[in-house]
Amino acid sequence: MSLKSNPYIKLNGGDFLYHLGIDTSQVNCKEIFHDVKFVCLGGSTNRMLKFAKFINENLNGNSEEPYNYAYKTDRYCLYKTGPILIANHGIGVPSLSVLLNEIFKLLFYAQCSDVIFIRLGTCGGIGVEAGTVVITDNVVNGELEPIFSYVSIKLGKRINITTTVDADLVREIYDHSSQNNSFTIVRGTTCSVDCFYEAQGRLDGALCDYTEEDRKQFFEKLQRNGVKNLEMESLGLFSYCHRAGYKAAMIAVALLNRLEADEPTSNIDMLKEWESRPFYTVLNFIRSKLDIV
Amino acid sequence: MSLKSNPYIKLNGGDFLYHLGIDTSQVNCKEIFHDVKFVCLGGSTNRMLKFAKFINENLNGNSEEPYNYAYKTDRYCLYKTGPILIANHGIGVPSLSVLLNEIFKLLFYAQCSDVIFIRLGTCGGIGVEAGTVVITDNVVNGELEPIFSYVSIKLGKRINITTTVDADLVREIYDHSSQNNSFTIVRGTTCSVDCFYEAQGRLDGALCDYTEEDRKQFFEKLQRNGVKNLEMESLGLFSYCHRAGYKAAMIAVALLNRLEADEPTSNIDMLKEWESRPFYTVLNFIRSKLDIV
Repeated sequence: MSLKSNPYIKLNGGDFLYHLGIDTSQVNCKEIFHDVKFVCLGGSTNRMLKFAKFINENLNGNSEEPYNYAYKTDRYCLYKTGPILIANHGIGVPSLSVLLNEIFKLLFYAQCSDVIFIRLGTCGGIGVEAGTVVITDNVVNGELEPIFSYVSIKLGKRINITTTVDADLVREIYDHSSQNNSFTIVRGTTCSVDCFYEAQGRLDGALCDYTEEDRKQFFEKLQRNGVKNLEMESLGLFSYCHRAGYKAAMIAVALLNRLEADEPTSNIDMLKEWESRPFYTVLNFIRSKLDIV
Repeated sequence: MSLKSNPYIKLNGGDFLYHLGIDTSQVNCKEIFHDVKFVCLGGSTNRMLKFAKFINENLNGNSEEPYNYAYKTDRYCLYKTGPILIANHGIGVPSLSVLLNEIFKLLFYAQCSDVIFIRLGTCGGIGVEAGTVVITDNVVNGELEPIFSYVSIKLGKRINITTTVDADLVREIYDHSSQNNSFTIVRGTTCSVDCFYEAQGRLDGALCDYTEEDRKQFFEKLQRNGVKNLEMESLGLFSYCHRAGYKAAMIAVALLNRLEADEPTSNIDMLKEWESRPFYTVLNFIRSKLDIV
């Protein structure tokens, strides 16, 4: 049996998932990972460890320290708690793409089925208050096109991949979240870019040759087009998952309203509380899928 | 006084370097970082800690554990040993760009001058034996153009930045390296792409809709154009450093010859030894600049 998205990958071929440090000839992927139904991803290692503990406590009622399956490498972390695989993807699409390739292969070797990918992110809000959780129902690049386009993807050739978001999945996540949470949750378009500073119109990076007025006009354009948040990975998430045949969703909390500032001004405890809001959104959704109330 | 590449950044404005976790109103940047003359970067946290220890031992003769100035965050690490700043940048240009923006600002607040950036990488060699150290004398994207081009860099607009490599700096590093090292060092063109698998013609990613023959032709094209290695960050390194007014160099060790395989087949001890080869190349160069023999 071969992987559908790559006929060169055979089920029993043996493989070294290089950036996860997992040798499939040494690790019984099917035994360990076969029951995985959700892959939850986020940028930061510490935040994803915190999420693994959170899921452990809230879904499984245990407070064990999660085991890091990627312990042989410092590139990514990888936890599993029940049917949920949890990893960090670093910053930006290239870093995410390496992780996704290796997790797709892991799920294939484990012969998993019906797996849903969810990114739990932090983001800059556009016209939404800090602390708001945004569920992406549309994803665009910096030019506001729903296209993932890189010069150097396939054998050096540019490829454009049209991105779509699964409307049913968005509705399902939203319905369960808004019933059970006390904070504000909205749906909207996510603008996904390749840089934290210039691409997001910040005036406080090391490089800036545009003016405050340019920045203002950029944000107005984003607002006119229904953009609710800016971040750096969702375009890659939706494109890669779609190509590999997986459903994906993106849930991010706004750490600030970018119409008001370039950097979060809230205190660290408040930011930490906000960072954990997508945890509850995902927990509610997973509970509903697993029929645990 | 303002930063030349961004007039909004003032010397005494106070700044929170968010992804480094450094608050310039709490940390005396000038006192700590003013003597920095070299910024050495690499992808992996562990490798850069190892490099910081290596420099500490070989340049300063001490075996102290380096202090991580970015200890408040898990995004990057940041060490300083003598006039050398050492950090990891993660995988890919977006991750590198966040780090560079914040280091450029740090150097500005510290009022440093004549700083040289050096990336110590690992890479896939093109027609060079595993273990060979490649010093980049030309950098191109996957389409073999010396252009850094992203859809979403500046306020959502695509910008193309022509990249150039400092020929004098390449010569200087090469001359000092080849005199003092026992391993093979070559100069050549680096092809810098946004993905580890498809963009580098690997057949062992989760996604592959090209054939072995396509892969062969891609590598032949790279060879005809003088490409000696493939990696994921140098296009961003040269572009961002040039825009910020810094010289940059790129030294990477080939962990395999991509004409022969997709993944390293050598044993882990051999790979570790190879990974440290750029350490010696950089050490020799820095010694020569500091007039320590």
